[in-house]
Amino acid sequence: MDEFMQAALEQAKKSLKEGGIPIGSVLVKNGRILAEGHNKRVQEKNPILHGEMDCLNNAGRVGSYKDTIIYSTLMPCYMCAGTIVQFKIPKVIVGESQTFSGAREFMESHGVEVVDINSRECIEMMRDFIAKNPELWNEDIGEL
Amino acid sequence: MDEFMQAALEQAKKSLKEGGIPIGSVLVKNGRILAEGHNKRVQEKNPILHGEMDCLNNAGRVGSYKDTIIYSTLMPCYMCAGTIVQFKIPKVIVGESQTFSGAREFMESHGVEVVDINSRECIEMMRDFIAKNPELWNEDIGEL
Repeated sequence: MDEFMQAALEQAKKSLKEGGIPIGSVLVKNGRILAEGHNKRVQEKNPILHGEMDCLNNAGRVGSYKDTIIYSTLMPCYMCAGTIVQFKIPKVIVGESQTFSGAREFMESHGVEVVDINSRECIEMMRDFIAKNPELWNEDIGEL
Repeated sequence: MDEFMQAALEQAKKSLKEGGIPIGSVLVKNGRILAEGHNKRVQEKNPILHGEMDCLNNAGRVGSYKDTIIYSTLMPCYMCAGTIVQFKIPKVIVGESQTFSGAREFMESHGVEVVDINSRECIEMMRDFIAKNPELWNEDIGEL
């Protein structure tokens, strides 16, 4: 796990400590972190602030995303994947896709490179969270 | 144009008066407006607050979206379409898709019903805005 995924994981752990959903994200440009974020559905009662969306929100208006890479501790859902496609972010690196398969094929069909590092730490964090909070997790992925 | 599209159009006009991008949206459940919103890229320097996203943000945690309809003055982009698919919003009614074709097929391929009322007022509003603000518009749709 590189320093950027480590930063995303720290964001996820921060969310968990706040009583939120443990998914974190960072946006990297030219080897530097532009912004960090984490899921805030619980903290801000906000359904659109998944980790990736909060990160892009925090980054503000960056202009072109063509030299950026977005990291997420979990495979993006359709909302976050649609945003990646629309913003033309060329590369996504995810911590895992074992607990949620997300929208990998959709992103790849639009030319986005997707790398899954299959991190045991990321998998165990989400598996534990989902087991303890199934309703909250189902709400977050629209399974109600 | 029904009362709900009228409310979305009023949101778009409000954004224009604020110096922002004129796209508005409302979320309707059982014949009642749950929330309204408009594009806030300029006003809040926020790239994720397209009209539909701001509306869903304002709606908060509504639980299941299965009885909702989202209205937008313009065909949703991939970010907003991905959100509609992920949240399982079953129906989208748009003011127009002449000035931006958006992600209609993607939504339909996921079972979302899409109705385009092809409103001349919506078309003229966007056509005029894009002609006067091409760079801002290109930024909003990721064409940089």
